[in-house]
Amino acid sequence: MNPAFLKQAIELAIASVGRGGGPFGALVAKDGAVVATGANQVTSANDPTAHAEVVVIREACKALGSFQLSGCDLYSSCEPCPMCLGAIYWARPARVFFAATHEQASQAGFDDTFIYRQIEMPAASRTIPMFCVQEPDAGAPFAAWLRKTDRTGY
Amino acid sequence: MNPAFLKQAIELAIASVGRGGGPFGALVAKDGAVVATGANQVTSANDPTAHAEVVVIREACKALGSFQLSGCDLYSSCEPCPMCLGAIYWARPARVFFAATHEQASQAGFDDTFIYRQIEMPAASRTIPMFCVQEPDAGAPFAAWLRKTDRTGY
Repeated sequence: MNPAFLKQAIELAIASVGRGGGPFGALVAKDGAVVATGANQVTSANDPTAHAEVVVIREACKALGSFQLSGCDLYSSCEPCPMCLGAIYWARPARVFFAATHEQASQAGFDDTFIYRQIEMPAASRTIPMFCVQEPDAGAPFAAWLRKTDRTGY
Repeated sequence: MNPAFLKQAIELAIASVGRGGGPFGALVAKDGAVVATGANQVTSANDPTAHAEVVVIREACKALGSFQLSGCDLYSSCEPCPMCLGAIYWARPARVFFAATHEQASQAGFDDTFIYRQIEMPAASRTIPMFCVQEPDAGAPFAAWLRKTDRTGY
């Protein structure tokens, strides 16, 4: 763990507030060097997925020319929300270090803890209800995927 | 629920496989019309966050000029993974309709169910360990945020 990288993530978060963005910053490091930095761009980019971790994962993947962050560490000013936690699992860095907790984010008015609780509920009972619709072709995309012998898995 | 939109999401997923992408498609509809469509672009765009739902949320927000999908429905060929579920909560559409389950995605080789299980574990015990580092400045970004009287919440 490099404390300077965590401090830099926090500074990115503070700078983001100065620009009118959300109070979150993150960076990706590999072999002791910074690969990419990112900050929250939800309202500036009209992109609800543009959390600091998602932004920095995208940028680091661009810099490395890969859809995987193998051997990288992700530093974030705050504990990842469920979206960012999922993004981290798909990007597969080695480790994650964060400063503030998701409870602190919630105290500042963000939905992080609320969303963690929603995940545990049955899909159709969530505040955004999610319905599984019976559809005979539901498995067709996976069948096509498994038939494709030269598929690129991820 | 419009069955034609769900069928279209499945067709987008099958078409994605044909292009070498992952077997997932999604669309956002509002007032009976399609706002945006999307398909998985993880390997084609070197972006592990480019799942169909994330892609279509970004595109729909761009089309609507908003970081919220109020009054919209999201149709997906498959149940959202935790990343996409989180993205949906941040975008706040009215409802989600999906065809295949995350168990079917897992049977086709994807990590969806695995990631749902990882979320329930203590952060430091996950296969990608996530460490909360004691840092005196951890709360500084939130303090700056709450001090900013003209902040744009989301």
